[in-house]
Amino acid sequence: MDRTAFSSEPAEAADRLAQLRLIRSENVGPITFRELIKYFASAAEALEALPSLAARGGQRRIGICPKSQAEEELAAAEACGARHLFMGEPDYPNALAAVEDAPPVLLVIGRRDFLNRPSVAIVGARNASTNGRRLARDIAAGVAAGGLVVASGMARGIDTAAHEGALDGGTIAVLAGGPDVVYPEENQALYDAICARGAVLAEAPPGLVPQARHFPQRNRIISGLALGVVVVEAAVRSGSLITARLANEQGREVMAVPGSPLDPRCRGANDLIRKGATMVESAEDVLSVLQAMRGDGLSQPGPRETAAVNLRPDIPASDDAHARILDALGPSPAAVDSIIRDLNLPPQVVLTILLELELAGRLERHPGNMVALLGDGG
Amino acid sequence: MDRTAFSSEPAEAADRLAQLRLIRSENVGPITFRELIKYFASAAEALEALPSLAARGGQRRIGICPKSQAEEELAAAEACGARHLFMGEPDYPNALAAVEDAPPVLLVIGRRDFLNRPSVAIVGARNASTNGRRLARDIAAGVAAGGLVVASGMARGIDTAAHEGALDGGTIAVLAGGPDVVYPEENQALYDAICARGAVLAEAPPGLVPQARHFPQRNRIISGLALGVVVVEAAVRSGSLITARLANEQGREVMAVPGSPLDPRCRGANDLIRKGATMVESAEDVLSVLQAMRGDGLSQPGPRETAAVNLRPDIPASDDAHARILDALGPSPAAVDSIIRDLNLPPQVVLTILLELELAGRLERHPGNMVALLGDGG
Repeated sequence: MDRTAFSSEPAEAADRLAQLRLIRSENVGPITFRELIKYFASAAEALEALPSLAARGGQRRIGICPKSQAEEELAAAEACGARHLFMGEPDYPNALAAVEDAPPVLLVIGRRDFLNRPSVAIVGARNASTNGRRLARDIAAGVAAGGLVVASGMARGIDTAAHEGALDGGTIAVLAGGPDVVYPEENQALYDAICARGAVLAEAPPGLVPQARHFPQRNRIISGLALGVVVVEAAVRSGSLITARLANEQGREVMAVPGSPLDPRCRGANDLIRKGATMVESAEDVLSVLQAMRGDGLSQPGPRETAAVNLRPDIPASDDAHARILDALGPSPAAVDSIIRDLNLPPQVVLTILLELELAGRLERHPGNMVALLGDGG
Repeated sequence: MDRTAFSSEPAEAADRLAQLRLIRSENVGPITFRELIKYFASAAEALEALPSLAARGGQRRIGICPKSQAEEELAAAEACGARHLFMGEPDYPNALAAVEDAPPVLLVIGRRDFLNRPSVAIVGARNASTNGRRLARDIAAGVAAGGLVVASGMARGIDTAAHEGALDGGTIAVLAGGPDVVYPEENQALYDAICARGAVLAEAPPGLVPQARHFPQRNRIISGLALGVVVVEAAVRSGSLITARLANEQGREVMAVPGSPLDPRCRGANDLIRKGATMVESAEDVLSVLQAMRGDGLSQPGPRETAAVNLRPDIPASDDAHARILDALGPSPAAVDSIIRDLNLPPQVVLTILLELELAGRLERHPGNMVALLGDGG
């Protein structure tokens, strides 16, 4: 289906533009985006409501993405061969849509049809050993030959080997920056090959150079796309372990390739196995683990259940409730459910105030319906 | 306590001699030995009954160990510094006594007091890698420093490294042949050091050169002595995996050190982890696993429950029962309980006929109260 034809309809094009403006606006994260859309029926109405919501959260001016900026982003995407893919559109990956904080918009270059094929993520150390890279390449080639698309992050080491191994069978590179920003530079040829034969996926607008904080955000997309994550050579406290943790939180299968306890690059993977990850040593192992899952009817995670409680930003909350919620929050993430229970406030009041605080830049969302107060930087 | 003084009492010395003759007699395995002693009150009476029991099982002549041969064995043991240790004597290892087919007699050289200290077995490949040997040595040294005696089989590779690592802290070498038969020869210096500072344990009489079939028998002693078994580098279908299987059957903790899937020497250990063995990467890991067990009150396995059903060799079984049991048996091990249930015969009749068949050389015992018919070799 040609999505261009679809989006050329004036109403749909306007909605896409409004959605893009909403997600690119200050303090609007994926969860807030989803809640706003759920309440306001359209992105355009949510955009209009942003200033007053942010003001109630304590911020006088919220930076709303101007129409011109969104239009420039659409043009830049076209220039680099990328398409915007909004949640709810047919090619948007269903598995990822089931994730709590799934990106409201993705930019994709290449094989959009890969996004809804069953996939597995293969991630690991940048400073991987020769053997580790060989394992990643062999496992990737084997699972790709077995019909799975291989997702990874196009980093040095394991990621690169995984993409190379799966290039013939099907691979998706999920970038931390814009879809046209090749990092590391040495992977330009691999990037070109993936654009031509696989798919490149990004959450950030074209041109955005990734910062440290973008990498964990990117990792949730890698795990969210996939039925499971295979970790090959990961040190303790590495990005690969973050991906594994996110995969676990997302209900994905976490698999790890064991290694010698004498090799620090294997400690993270071994730790995962100790904590319950499935040990895999070959593509056959990965396929049989995922086959068992699919045998249970888990061919793809279904769309996520939406929360039963709706926001009520139409009912202004009392200053008292606002103060009590601020009191209950701290820099460590707390469960929203606990806050509702502890304060004995109506859920819709709590959720609304949290939304307002987030839009005011005072709150951070964490997976598992957790929230934390941000430092008083403004 | 000086056991020599004890056994110099004429009655006790005579009983030890009779026990030794009984276990060295033809077709008398550890389980049969135990059942005979349980029924006949003394080894001497069991020895007297052997010919008629074997005859009822279908063998006209049973090779009973002559008194002179047993006396020679006792003298040979004294000559090589070994002591016979009968089950029930204070130094006999309690953990091992709890095993179904524990040896009725052991020969020990060196530190008998090590036999009842909490211990862990460390076993693995003969053709171990440098890294594998280093791991075994480090883990052995660490657990020995933590108060555990390290048991192993004095084979090349991992076993040797484990003994070397634990020499200062405490180690037991369990030999497949006689207590004075050093195999491989290159381990003469290690053997001498263990005799001097650790303990050497054997089930076979002095001078016996081990055959292939003795190694799995020896492995049950290694695992039976220990709270748990650590497997370092083991190929698939290796002796170390037999030890791990026996350990599992004996209710011991099975631990394995992971390794690269590209190294065939690690496949067996990785397989164990996949099948539920506890992954360990260091001495601390082993100590904490076993500490947890001991916290559960499992500091040492207790003496084994004896079967509720006693033999009744005084009641001659009918030819019909004999024939029906022979019919029910085959070359694959079958559970004794199933045979009793299927044939609907009194348990003591079945057990007695099985004993007679075993003494006649027609039956083989397997762990888990299983029996198999032996080929009709005579």
